[in-house]
Amino acid sequence: MLGCVWLGIHAAIEMLYAAFVSLDSVEVPTIAAVNGAAIGGGFGLALLCDVRFVATDAKLAVNFARLGIHSGLAITDLLPRAVGYSNAADLLLSGRRILGDEAVRMGFAREAVDADQVLPRALELAGEMAACAPLAVRSIKKTLRATTGRDLSPTLAKESMAQALLMQSKDAQEGIKAMMSRRPPEFEGK
Amino acid sequence: MLGCVWLGIHAAIEMLYAAFVSLDSVEVPTIAAVNGAAIGGGFGLALLCDVRFVATDAKLAVNFARLGIHSGLAITDLLPRAVGYSNAADLLLSGRRILGDEAVRMGFAREAVDADQVLPRALELAGEMAACAPLAVRSIKKTLRATTGRDLSPTLAKESMAQALLMQSKDAQEGIKAMMSRRPPEFEGK
Amino acid sequence: MLGCVWLGIHAAIEMLYAAFVSLDSVEVPTIAAVNGAAIGGGFGLALLCDVRFVATDAKLAVNFARLGIHSGLAITDLLPRAVGYSNAADLLLSGRRILGDEAVRMGFAREAVDADQVLPRALELAGEMAACAPLAVRSIKKTLRATTGRDLSPTLAKESMAQALLMQSKDAQEGIKAMMSRRPPEFEGK
Repeated sequence: MLGCVWLGIHAAIEMLYAAFVSLDSVEVPTIAAVNGAAIGGGFGLALLCDVRFVATDAKLAVNFARLGIHSGLAITDLLPRAVGYSNAADLLLSGRRILGDEAVRMGFAREAVDADQVLPRALELAGEMAACAPLAVRSIKKTLRATTGRDLSPTLAKESMAQALLMQSKDAQEGIKAMMSRRPPEFEGK
Repeated sequence: MLGCVWLGIHAAIEMLYAAFVSLDSVEVPTIAAVNGAAIGGGFGLALLCDVRFVATDAKLAVNFARLGIHSGLAITDLLPRAVGYSNAADLLLSGRRILGDEAVRMGFAREAVDADQVLPRALELAGEMAACAPLAVRSIKKTLRATTGRDLSPTLAKESMAQALLMQSKDAQEGIKAMMSRRPPEFEGK
Repeated sequence: MLGCVWLGIHAAIEMLYAAFVSLDSVEVPTIAAVNGAAIGGGFGLALLCDVRFVATDAKLAVNFARLGIHSGLAITDLLPRAVGYSNAADLLLSGRRILGDEAVRMGFAREAVDADQVLPRALELAGEMAACAPLAVRSIKKTLRATTGRDLSPTLAKESMAQALLMQSKDAQEGIKAMMSRRPPEFEGK
Protein backbone atom coordinates (compact mmCIF):
# COMPACT_ATOMS: atom_id res chain seq x y z
CA MET A 1 0.00 0.00 0.00
CA LEU A 2 2.71 2.43 0.99
CA GLY A 3 4.62 1.28 -2.08
CA CYS A 4 1.66 2.28 -4.28
CA VAL A 5 1.42 5.70 -2.72
CA TRP A 6 5.14 6.13 -3.20
CA LEU A 7 4.97 5.13 -6.86
CA GLY A 8 2.06 7.49 -7.38
CA ILE A 9 3.84 10.47 -5.85
CA HIS A 10 7.01 9.59 -7.71
CA ALA A 11 5.27 9.50 -11.10
CA ALA A 12 3.33 12.70 -10.39
CA ILE A 13 6.52 14.59 -9.51
CA GLU A 14 8.32 13.40 -12.64
CA MET A 15 5.41 14.47 -14.84
CA LEU A 16 5.10 17.85 -13.19
CA TYR A 17 8.80 18.55 -13.65
CA ALA A 18 9.07 17.25 -17.22
CA ALA A 19 7.69 20.47 -18.72
CA PHE A 20 10.13 22.65 -16.74
CA VAL A 21 13.09 20.41 -17.45
CA SER A 22 12.42 20.40 -21.20
CA LEU A 23 13.89 23.94 -21.11
CA ASP A 24 17.26 22.28 -20.65
CA SER A 25 17.21 20.77 -24.12
CA VAL A 26 16.51 24.00 -26.01
CA GLU A 27 19.31 24.34 -28.58
CA VAL A 28 19.39 28.14 -28.68
CA PRO A 29 20.53 30.27 -25.70
CA THR A 30 18.02 30.79 -22.87
CA ILE A 31 18.03 33.86 -20.60
CA ALA A 32 15.99 34.34 -17.41
CA ALA A 33 14.73 37.82 -16.42
CA VAL A 34 13.70 37.56 -12.75
CA ASN A 35 11.44 40.24 -11.29
CA GLY A 36 9.72 39.74 -7.95
CA ALA A 37 9.98 36.35 -6.25
CA ALA A 38 11.62 33.15 -7.53
CA ILE A 39 11.15 30.66 -4.70
CA GLY A 40 11.52 26.88 -5.02
CA GLY A 41 10.29 25.89 -8.47
CA GLY A 42 10.67 29.42 -9.88
CA PHE A 43 14.25 29.47 -8.66
CA GLY A 44 14.82 26.12 -10.38
CA LEU A 45 13.30 27.38 -13.62
CA ALA A 46 15.70 30.34 -13.66
CA LEU A 47 18.61 27.97 -12.98
CA LEU A 48 17.70 25.91 -16.04
CA CYS A 49 18.46 28.94 -18.25
CA ASP A 50 21.92 29.72 -19.57
CA VAL A 51 22.14 33.23 -18.06
CA ARG A 52 20.09 35.09 -15.43
CA PHE A 53 19.31 38.78 -14.88
CA VAL A 54 17.59 39.71 -11.59
CA ALA A 55 16.00 42.75 -10.04
CA THR A 56 17.90 44.24 -7.10
CA ASP A 57 14.81 43.58 -4.96
CA ALA A 58 14.11 40.08 -6.36
CA LYS A 59 13.46 37.54 -3.60
CA LEU A 60 15.27 34.28 -4.27
CA ALA A 61 15.16 31.10 -2.18
CA VAL A 62 15.28 27.33 -2.39
CA ASN A 63 13.01 26.76 0.59
CA PHE A 64 12.50 22.98 0.31
CA ALA A 65 14.21 22.09 3.63
CA ARG A 66 11.89 24.56 5.40
CA LEU A 67 8.93 22.60 4.06
CA GLY A 68 10.44 19.25 4.97
CA ILE A 69 10.77 18.09 1.35
CA HIS A 70 13.69 17.42 -0.96
CA SER A 71 14.55 19.92 -3.70
CA GLY A 72 13.83 18.98 -7.31
CA LEU A 73 14.34 20.29 -10.87
CA ALA A 74 17.99 19.20 -10.72
CA ILE A 75 18.71 22.14 -8.41
CA THR A 76 21.18 20.00 -6.44
CA ASP A 77 23.19 19.70 -9.66
CA LEU A 78 22.63 23.10 -11.28
CA LEU A 79 23.06 25.25 -8.16
CA PRO A 80 26.57 24.04 -7.21
CA ARG A 81 27.56 24.38 -10.89
CA ALA A 82 26.42 28.01 -10.82
CA VAL A 83 27.58 29.15 -7.38
CA GLY A 84 29.90 26.43 -6.05
CA TYR A 85 29.30 23.77 -3.41
CA SER A 86 29.47 26.12 -0.39
CA ASN A 87 26.94 28.65 -1.62
CA ALA A 88 24.67 25.83 -2.76
CA ALA A 89 24.89 24.19 0.69
CA ASP A 90 24.31 27.56 2.37
CA LEU A 91 21.11 28.20 0.41
CA LEU A 92 19.72 24.64 0.21
CA LEU A 93 20.41 23.65 3.84
CA SER A 94 18.98 26.87 5.31
CA GLY A 95 16.24 27.70 2.82
CA ARG A 96 17.11 31.34 3.47
CA ARG A 97 16.06 34.12 1.15
CA ILE A 98 18.55 36.31 -0.71
CA LEU A 99 18.14 39.50 -2.74
CA GLY A 100 19.54 40.43 -6.14
CA ASP A 101 22.95 41.75 -5.10
CA GLU A 102 23.83 38.63 -3.09
CA ALA A 103 22.66 36.50 -6.02
CA VAL A 104 25.17 38.32 -8.25
CA ARG A 105 28.01 38.04 -5.70
CA MET A 106 27.40 34.27 -5.52
CA GLY A 107 27.41 33.92 -9.30
CA PHE A 108 23.72 32.99 -9.60
CA ALA A 109 22.92 36.04 -11.74
CA ARG A 110 24.92 38.04 -14.22
CA GLU A 111 23.51 41.40 -13.05
CA ALA A 112 21.14 42.87 -10.50
CA VAL A 113 19.42 46.01 -11.81
CA ASP A 114 16.32 48.08 -11.07
CA ALA A 115 13.12 46.11 -11.65
CA ASP A 116 12.22 48.00 -14.85
CA GLN A 117 15.67 47.35 -16.29
CA VAL A 118 15.71 43.55 -15.89
CA LEU A 119 13.89 42.69 -19.10
CA PRO A 120 15.63 45.38 -21.22
CA ARG A 121 19.05 44.12 -20.08
CA ALA A 122 18.10 40.50 -20.79
CA LEU A 123 16.83 41.50 -24.23
CA GLU A 124 20.03 43.39 -24.91
CA LEU A 125 22.10 40.24 -24.35
CA ALA A 126 19.57 38.22 -26.36
CA GLY A 127 20.04 40.73 -29.20
CA GLU A 128 23.81 40.28 -29.12
CA MET A 129 23.37 36.51 -29.27
CA ALA A 130 20.82 36.77 -32.09
CA ALA A 131 23.30 38.86 -34.11
CA CYS A 132 25.77 35.96 -34.11
CA ALA A 133 25.81 33.17 -36.68
CA PRO A 134 23.00 30.76 -35.71
CA LEU A 135 24.85 27.54 -36.55
CA ALA A 136 27.91 28.62 -34.58
CA VAL A 137 25.82 29.60 -31.52
CA ARG A 138 24.07 26.21 -31.43
CA SER A 139 27.25 24.30 -32.06
CA ILE A 140 29.17 26.14 -29.30
CA LYS A 141 26.29 25.71 -26.83
CA LYS A 142 26.29 21.99 -27.58
CA THR A 143 30.05 21.71 -27.00
CA LEU A 144 29.84 23.74 -23.77
CA ARG A 145 27.29 21.35 -22.37
CA ALA A 146 29.37 18.35 -23.35
CA THR A 147 32.58 19.70 -21.82
CA THR A 148 30.81 20.58 -18.57
CA GLY A 149 29.25 17.11 -18.45
CA ARG A 150 25.77 18.58 -18.24
CA ASP A 151 23.33 15.67 -17.94
CA LEU A 152 20.48 16.27 -15.53
CA SER A 153 18.86 12.84 -15.70
CA PRO A 154 20.80 11.06 -12.92
CA THR A 155 20.16 13.97 -10.55
CA LEU A 156 16.48 14.18 -11.48
CA ALA A 157 16.10 10.45 -10.77
CA LYS A 158 17.88 10.76 -7.41
CA GLU A 159 15.87 13.83 -6.41
CA SER A 160 12.44 12.50 -7.33
CA MET A 161 13.09 9.37 -5.30
CA ALA A 162 14.21 11.37 -2.26
CA GLN A 163 11.20 13.67 -2.73
CA ALA A 164 8.71 10.83 -2.85
CA LEU A 165 10.20 9.32 0.31
CA LEU A 166 10.36 12.57 2.29
CA MET A 167 6.86 13.64 1.27
CA GLN A 168 5.53 10.79 3.36
CA SER A 169 7.39 12.02 6.47
CA LYS A 170 5.52 13.62 9.36
CA ASP A 171 7.71 16.72 9.05
CA ALA A 172 6.77 17.28 5.39
CA GLN A 173 3.08 17.33 6.33
CA GLU A 174 3.84 19.72 9.19
CA GLY A 175 6.06 21.92 6.99
CA ILE A 176 3.43 22.31 4.29
CA LYS A 177 0.62 22.91 6.84
CA ALA A 178 2.76 25.53 8.63
CA MET A 179 3.46 27.33 5.35
CA MET A 180 -0.26 27.34 4.45
CA SER A 181 -1.20 28.88 7.80
CA ARG A 182 1.86 31.16 7.78
CA ARG A 183 3.19 29.93 11.13
CA PRO A 184 6.66 28.52 12.01
CA PRO A 185 6.76 24.71 11.62
CA GLU A 186 7.45 22.39 14.55
CA PHE A 187 9.66 19.63 13.24
CA GLU A 188 10.35 16.34 15.03
CA GLY A 189 12.86 14.75 12.68
CA LYS A 190 10.34 12.12 11.66
CA MET B 1 36.29 16.26 -52.56
CA LEU B 2 34.51 17.99 -49.72
CA GLY B 3 35.95 15.26 -47.46
CA CYS B 4 39.47 16.22 -48.56
CA VAL B 5 38.90 19.91 -47.91
CA TRP B 6 37.51 19.02 -44.51
CA LEU B 7 40.55 16.89 -43.64
CA GLY B 8 42.84 19.64 -44.81
CA ILE B 9 41.18 22.32 -42.69
CA HIS B 10 41.04 19.95 -39.74
CA ALA B 11 44.75 19.14 -39.89
CA ALA B 12 45.71 22.79 -40.39
CA ILE B 13 43.72 23.86 -37.32
CA GLU B 14 45.27 21.16 -35.17
CA MET B 15 48.80 22.14 -36.22
CA LEU B 16 48.16 25.82 -35.69
CA TYR B 17 46.84 25.21 -32.18
CA ALA B 18 49.49 22.69 -31.12
CA ALA B 19 52.04 25.40 -30.32
CA PHE B 20 49.56 27.35 -28.18
CA VAL B 21 48.26 24.25 -26.40
CA SER B 22 51.78 23.09 -25.50
CA LEU B 23 51.63 25.83 -22.84
CA ASP B 24 49.25 23.55 -20.97
CA SER B 25 51.93 20.96 -20.31
CA VAL B 26 54.48 23.33 -18.77
CA GLU B 27 55.32 21.90 -15.33
CA VAL B 28 56.06 25.22 -13.61
CA PRO B 29 53.38 27.85 -12.95
CA THR B 30 52.33 30.05 -15.87
CA ILE B 31 50.98 33.60 -15.45
CA ALA B 32 49.37 35.77 -18.14
CA ALA B 33 49.79 39.56 -18.10
CA VAL B 34 47.16 40.97 -20.47
CA ASN B 35 47.55 44.52 -21.75
CA GLY B 36 45.46 45.81 -24.65
CA ALA B 37 43.27 43.32 -26.53
CA ALA B 38 42.94 39.56 -26.06
CA ILE B 39 40.32 38.52 -28.59
CA GLY B 40 39.71 34.96 -29.76
CA GLY B 41 43.07 33.17 -29.86
CA GLY B 42 44.72 35.69 -27.51
CA PHE B 43 41.91 35.13 -25.02
CA GLY B 44 42.47 31.38 -25.30
CA LEU B 45 46.20 31.76 -24.78
CA ALA B 46 45.59 33.67 -21.53
CA LEU B 47 43.12 30.98 -20.42
CA LEU B 48 45.79 28.30 -20.84
CA CYS B 49 47.84 29.98 -18.08
CA ASP B 50 47.38 29.18 -14.40
CA VAL B 51 46.65 32.78 -13.33
CA ARG B 52 45.78 35.97 -15.24
CA PHE B 53 46.38 39.66 -14.53
CA VAL B 54 44.64 42.17 -16.81
CA ALA B 55 44.67 45.91 -17.43
CA THR B 56 41.52 47.75 -16.37
CA ASP B 57 41.12 48.81 -20.02
CA ALA B 58 42.00 45.42 -21.52
CA LYS B 59 39.52 44.35 -24.20
CA LEU B 60 38.57 40.71 -23.85
CA ALA B 61 36.27 38.66 -26.10
CA VAL B 62 35.70 35.22 -27.52
CA ASN B 63 34.21 36.45 -30.79
CA PHE B 64 33.99 33.15 -32.70
CA ALA B 65 30.18 33.07 -32.94
CA ARG B 66 30.27 36.58 -34.47
CA LEU B 67 32.51 35.20 -37.22
CA GLY B 68 30.38 32.13 -37.74
CA ILE B 69 33.06 29.71 -36.58
CA HIS B 70 33.43 27.42 -33.57
CA SER B 71 35.80 28.40 -30.76
CA GLY B 72 39.03 26.45 -30.33
CA LEU B 73 42.04 26.19 -28.00
CA ALA B 74 39.90 24.21 -25.52
CA ILE B 75 38.12 27.46 -24.58
CA THR B 76 34.82 25.55 -24.24
CA ASP B 77 36.50 23.54 -21.47
CA LEU B 78 38.78 26.14 -19.85
CA LEU B 79 36.32 29.04 -19.81
CA PRO B 80 33.53 27.30 -17.82
CA ARG B 81 36.23 25.99 -15.43
CA ALA B 82 37.41 29.57 -14.84
CA VAL B 83 34.13 31.50 -14.76
CA GLY B 84 31.35 28.88 -14.52
CA TYR B 85 28.92 27.67 -17.18
CA SER B 86 26.71 30.79 -17.22
CA ASN B 87 29.47 33.33 -17.72
CA ALA B 88 31.05 31.06 -20.33
CA ALA B 89 27.72 30.78 -22.17
CA ASP B 90 27.19 34.55 -21.87
CA LEU B 91 30.58 35.34 -23.48
CA LEU B 92 30.78 32.52 -26.03
CA LEU B 93 27.19 32.75 -27.30
CA SER B 94 27.24 36.55 -27.67
CA GLY B 95 30.88 37.15 -28.59
CA ARG B 96 30.56 40.37 -26.59
CA ARG B 97 33.57 42.30 -25.36
CA ILE B 98 34.31 42.86 -21.68
CA LEU B 99 36.83 45.06 -19.88
CA GLY B 100 39.18 44.23 -17.02
CA ASP B 101 36.84 44.80 -14.08
CA GLU B 102 34.13 42.52 -15.45
CA ALA B 103 36.80 39.89 -16.16
CA VAL B 104 37.76 39.99 -12.49
CA ARG B 105 34.15 39.82 -11.28
CA MET B 106 33.59 36.74 -13.44
CA GLY B 107 36.73 35.06 -12.10
CA PHE B 108 38.64 35.19 -15.41
CA ALA B 109 41.42 37.35 -13.95
CA ARG B 110 42.92 37.65 -10.49
CA GLU B 111 43.24 41.45 -10.68
CA ALA B 112 42.53 44.37 -13.00
CA VAL B 113 45.08 47.16 -12.57
CA ASP B 114 46.38 50.16 -14.50
CA ALA B 115 48.10 49.12 -17.73
CA ASP B 116 51.59 49.90 -16.41
CA GLN B 117 50.99 47.79 -13.31
CA VAL B 118 49.92 44.56 -15.05
CA LEU B 119 53.40 43.15 -15.68
CA PRO B 120 54.83 44.26 -12.29
CA ARG B 121 51.92 42.59 -10.46
CA ALA B 122 52.32 39.39 -12.49
CA LEU B 123 56.07 39.37 -11.78
CA GLU B 124 55.39 39.90 -8.09
CA LEU B 125 53.30 36.72 -7.95
CA ALA B 126 55.89 34.93 -10.11
CA GLY B 127 58.53 35.98 -7.56
CA GLU B 128 56.49 34.53 -4.69
CA MET B 129 56.13 31.26 -6.58
CA ALA B 130 59.84 31.20 -7.48
CA ALA B 131 60.72 31.61 -3.78
CA CYS B 132 58.94 28.34 -2.97
CA ALA B 133 60.57 24.91 -3.11
CA PRO B 134 60.70 23.94 -6.82
CA LEU B 135 59.89 20.24 -6.34
CA ALA B 136 56.90 21.05 -4.13
CA VAL B 137 55.53 23.62 -6.62
CA ARG B 138 55.71 21.16 -9.53
CA SER B 139 54.29 18.32 -7.49
CA ILE B 140 51.34 20.40 -6.21
CA LYS B 141 50.61 21.74 -9.71
CA LYS B 142 50.57 18.16 -11.01
CA THR B 143 48.15 17.05 -8.27
CA LEU B 144 45.89 20.09 -8.83
CA ARG B 145 45.54 19.21 -12.48
CA ALA B 146 44.78 15.60 -11.68
CA THR B 147 42.13 16.44 -9.07
CA THR B 148 40.42 18.90 -11.40
CA GLY B 149 40.46 16.31 -14.21
CA ARG B 150 42.28 18.69 -16.51
CA ASP B 151 42.69 16.93 -19.84
CA LEU B 152 42.19 19.16 -22.86
CA SER B 153 42.52 16.51 -25.58
CA PRO B 154 38.86 15.39 -25.82
CA THR B 155 37.72 19.03 -26.02
CA LEU B 156 40.37 19.93 -28.58
CA ALA B 157 39.28 17.00 -30.76
CA LYS B 158 35.60 17.97 -30.48
CA GLU B 159 36.32 21.65 -31.19
CA SER B 160 38.56 21.12 -34.21
CA MET B 161 35.96 18.88 -35.80
CA ALA B 162 33.18 21.46 -35.22
CA GLN B 163 35.50 24.19 -36.52
CA ALA B 164 36.31 22.33 -39.72
CA LEU B 165 32.61 21.72 -40.36
CA LEU B 166 31.46 25.28 -39.61
CA MET B 167 34.28 26.85 -41.62
CA GLN B 168 32.63 25.48 -44.75
CA SER B 169 29.30 27.17 -43.91
CA LYS B 170 28.09 30.19 -45.86
CA ASP B 171 27.84 32.18 -42.63
CA ALA B 172 31.50 31.63 -41.74
CA GLN B 173 32.54 33.06 -45.09
CA GLU B 174 30.19 36.01 -44.56
CA GLY B 175 31.38 36.51 -40.95
CA ILE B 176 35.04 36.63 -41.90
CA LYS B 177 34.38 38.90 -44.93
CA ALA B 178 32.30 41.25 -42.76
CA MET B 179 35.06 41.45 -40.13
CA MET B 180 37.66 42.20 -42.82
CA SER B 181 35.58 45.05 -44.24
CA ARG B 182 34.50 46.19 -40.74
CA ARG B 183 30.77 45.94 -41.48
CA PRO B 184 28.06 43.98 -39.60
CA PRO B 185 27.62 40.46 -40.99
CA GLU B 186 24.38 39.28 -42.57
CA PHE B 187 23.85 35.71 -41.42
CA GLU B 188 21.38 33.27 -42.95
CA GLY B 189 21.82 30.28 -40.67
CA LYS B 190 23.46 28.29 -43.47
CA MET C 1 65.73 1.21 4.40
CA LEU C 2 64.45 4.30 2.54
CA GLY C 3 61.32 2.28 1.74
CA CYS C 4 60.72 1.71 5.45
CA VAL C 5 61.14 5.38 6.30
CA TRP C 6 58.74 6.23 3.49
CA LEU C 7 56.12 3.76 4.73
CA GLY C 8 56.48 5.11 8.26
CA ILE C 9 56.00 8.74 7.19
CA HIS C 10 53.14 7.74 4.92
CA ALA C 11 51.27 5.89 7.69
CA ALA C 12 51.90 8.68 10.23
CA ILE C 13 50.48 11.32 7.86
CA GLU C 14 47.38 9.26 7.14
CA MET C 15 46.70 8.72 10.87
CA LEU C 16 47.24 12.39 11.70
CA TYR C 17 44.82 13.47 8.97
CA ALA C 18 42.13 10.86 9.65
CA ALA C 19 40.66 12.82 12.59
CA PHE C 20 40.45 16.04 10.55
CA VAL C 21 39.03 14.31 7.48
CA SER C 22 36.31 12.58 9.52
CA LEU C 23 34.64 16.02 9.52
CA ASP C 24 33.82 15.38 5.88
CA SER C 25 31.44 12.54 6.71
CA VAL C 26 29.30 14.47 9.20
CA GLU C 27 25.71 14.20 7.97
CA VAL C 28 24.48 17.55 9.30
CA PRO C 29 25.75 20.89 7.96
CA THR C 30 29.17 22.10 9.18
CA ILE C 31 30.13 25.78 9.41
CA ALA C 32 33.61 27.20 10.07
CA ALA C 33 34.06 30.46 12.00
CA VAL C 34 37.64 31.61 11.35
CA ASN C 35 39.19 34.17 13.67
CA GLY C 36 42.93 34.86 13.67
CA ALA C 37 45.16 32.61 11.55
CA ALA C 38 44.23 29.54 9.50
CA ILE C 39 47.48 28.44 7.88
CA GLY C 40 48.12 25.02 6.32
CA GLY C 41 46.20 22.45 8.37
CA GLY C 42 43.85 25.06 9.87
CA PHE C 43 43.04 26.28 6.37
CA GLY C 44 42.31 22.69 5.35
CA LEU C 45 40.07 22.15 8.35
CA ALA C 46 37.97 25.19 7.40
CA LEU C 47 37.76 23.93 3.81
CA LEU C 48 36.30 20.62 5.02
CA CYS C 49 33.25 22.52 6.34
CA ASP C 50 30.21 23.28 4.20
CA VAL C 51 30.33 27.07 4.71
CA ARG C 52 32.98 29.46 6.08
CA PHE C 53 32.76 32.82 7.86
CA VAL C 54 36.02 34.72 8.39
CA ALA C 55 37.22 37.80 10.24
CA THR C 56 38.24 40.71 8.03
CA ASP C 57 41.72 40.45 9.57
CA ALA C 58 41.92 36.63 9.45
CA LYS C 59 45.23 35.44 7.99
CA LEU C 60 44.75 32.61 5.53
CA ALA C 61 47.41 30.64 3.68
CA VAL C 62 48.26 27.24 2.27
CA ASN C 63 52.00 27.58 2.83
CA PHE C 64 53.12 24.02 2.02
CA ALA C 65 55.21 24.94 -1.05
CA ARG C 66 57.12 27.46 1.11
CA LEU C 67 58.06 24.61 3.44
CA GLY C 68 59.00 22.31 0.58
CA ILE C 69 56.24 19.80 1.31
CA HIS C 70 53.08 18.76 -0.52
CA SER C 71 49.71 19.96 0.73
CA GLY C 72 47.37 17.46 2.40
CA LEU C 73 43.83 17.22 3.81
CA ALA C 74 42.44 16.99 0.28
CA ILE C 75 43.14 20.72 -0.17
CA THR C 76 44.15 20.10 -3.81
CA ASP C 77 40.59 18.84 -4.36
CA LEU C 78 38.57 21.08 -2.02
CA LEU C 79 40.29 24.38 -2.82
CA PRO C 80 39.66 24.36 -6.60
CA ARG C 81 36.07 23.28 -5.89
CA ALA C 82 35.64 26.32 -3.63
CA VAL C 83 37.56 29.02 -5.54
CA GLY C 84 38.26 27.59 -9.00
CA TYR C 85 41.48 26.23 -10.49
CA SER C 86 43.19 29.62 -10.96
CA ASN C 87 42.71 30.89 -7.42
CA ALA C 88 43.73 27.49 -6.07
CA ALA C 89 46.88 27.53 -8.20
CA ASP C 90 47.59 31.13 -7.15
CA LEU C 91 47.42 30.27 -3.43
CA LEU C 92 48.96 26.79 -3.46
CA LEU C 93 51.87 27.55 -5.82
CA SER C 94 52.87 30.77 -4.03
CA GLY C 95 51.94 29.93 -0.41
CA ARG C 96 50.99 33.61 -0.10
CA ARG C 97 48.82 34.92 2.70
CA ILE C 98 45.42 36.51 2.10
CA LEU C 99 43.05 38.41 4.41
CA GLY C 100 39.30 38.03 4.87
CA ASP C 101 38.08 40.27 2.06
CA GLU C 102 40.18 38.54 -0.59
CA ALA C 103 38.97 35.18 0.76
CA VAL C 104 35.39 36.32 0.15
CA ARG C 105 36.13 37.67 -3.35
CA MET C 106 37.68 34.30 -4.25
CA GLY C 107 34.67 32.38 -2.92
CA PHE C 108 36.55 30.75 -0.02
CA ALA C 109 34.32 32.40 2.60
CA ARG C 110 30.71 33.49 2.60
CA GLU C 111 31.40 36.69 4.56
CA ALA C 112 34.25 38.65 6.12
CA VAL C 113 33.13 40.54 9.22
CA ASP C 114 34.68 42.13 12.32
CA ALA C 115 36.36 39.54 14.54
CA ASP C 116 33.66 39.70 17.22
CA GLN C 117 30.93 39.14 14.61
CA VAL C 118 32.34 35.95 13.05
CA LEU C 119 30.89 33.47 15.53
CA PRO C 120 27.49 35.28 15.87
CA ARG C 121 27.10 35.29 12.06
CA ALA C 122 28.02 31.60 11.83
CA LEU C 123 25.55 30.78 14.61
CA GLU C 124 22.86 32.78 12.84
CA LEU C 125 23.19 30.60 9.73
CA ALA C 126 23.39 27.48 11.93
CA GLY C 127 20.11 28.58 13.53
CA GLU C 128 18.42 28.94 10.15
CA MET C 129 19.60 25.44 9.21
CA ALA C 130 18.49 24.01 12.56
CA ALA C 131 15.01 25.46 12.00
CA CYS C 132 14.61 23.34 8.85
CA ALA C 133 13.27 19.77 8.79
CA PRO C 134 16.18 17.54 9.93
CA LEU C 135 15.49 14.66 7.50
CA ALA C 136 15.26 17.04 4.54
CA VAL C 137 18.52 18.81 5.48
CA ARG C 138 20.45 15.52 5.71
CA SER C 139 18.90 14.15 2.55
CA ILE C 140 19.67 17.31 0.53
CA LYS C 141 23.26 17.45 1.86
CA LYS C 142 23.73 13.83 0.82
CA THR C 143 22.41 14.50 -2.71
CA LEU C 144 24.55 17.66 -3.05
CA ARG C 145 27.67 15.66 -2.29
CA ALA C 146 26.70 12.96 -4.75
CA THR C 147 25.96 15.41 -7.59
CA THR C 148 29.25 17.25 -7.03
CA GLY C 149 31.12 13.92 -6.99
CA ARG C 150 32.61 14.67 -3.61
CA ASP C 151 34.90 11.77 -2.71
CA LEU C 152 38.12 12.81 -1.03
CA SER C 153 39.77 9.40 -0.82
CA PRO C 154 41.58 9.35 -4.20
CA THR C 155 42.99 12.83 -3.53
CA LEU C 156 44.02 11.94 0.03
CA ALA C 157 45.85 8.87 -1.26
CA LYS C 158 47.64 10.88 -3.96
CA GLU C 159 48.56 13.67 -1.54
CA SER C 160 49.90 11.47 1.25
CA MET C 161 52.14 9.66 -1.22
CA ALA C 162 53.49 12.95 -2.62
CA GLN C 163 53.94 14.24 0.93
CA ALA C 164 55.90 11.20 2.07
CA LEU C 165 58.17 11.48 -0.99
CA LEU C 166 58.77 15.23 -0.70
CA MET C 167 59.36 15.09 3.05
CA GLN C 168 62.56 13.21 2.33
CA SER C 169 63.81 15.95 -0.01
CA LYS C 170 66.66 18.26 1.05
CA ASP C 171 64.41 21.29 0.42
CA ALA C 172 61.72 20.07 2.84
CA GLN C 173 64.32 19.84 5.62
CA GLU C 174 65.58 23.32 4.75
CA GLY C 175 62.05 24.72 4.51
CA ILE C 176 61.05 23.46 7.93
CA LYS C 177 64.35 24.56 9.53
CA ALA C 178 63.99 28.02 7.99
CA MET C 179 60.44 28.37 9.28
CA MET C 180 61.56 27.32 12.79
CA SER C 181 64.32 29.93 12.84
CA ARG C 182 62.14 32.49 11.07
CA ARG C 183 64.57 33.07 8.21
CA PRO C 184 63.95 32.81 4.44
CA PRO C 185 64.68 29.28 3.12
CA GLU C 186 67.42 28.59 0.57
CA PHE C 187 66.04 26.00 -1.80
CA GLU C 188 68.11 23.99 -4.27
CA GLY C 189 65.38 22.05 -6.06
CA LYS C 190 66.58 18.80 -4.47
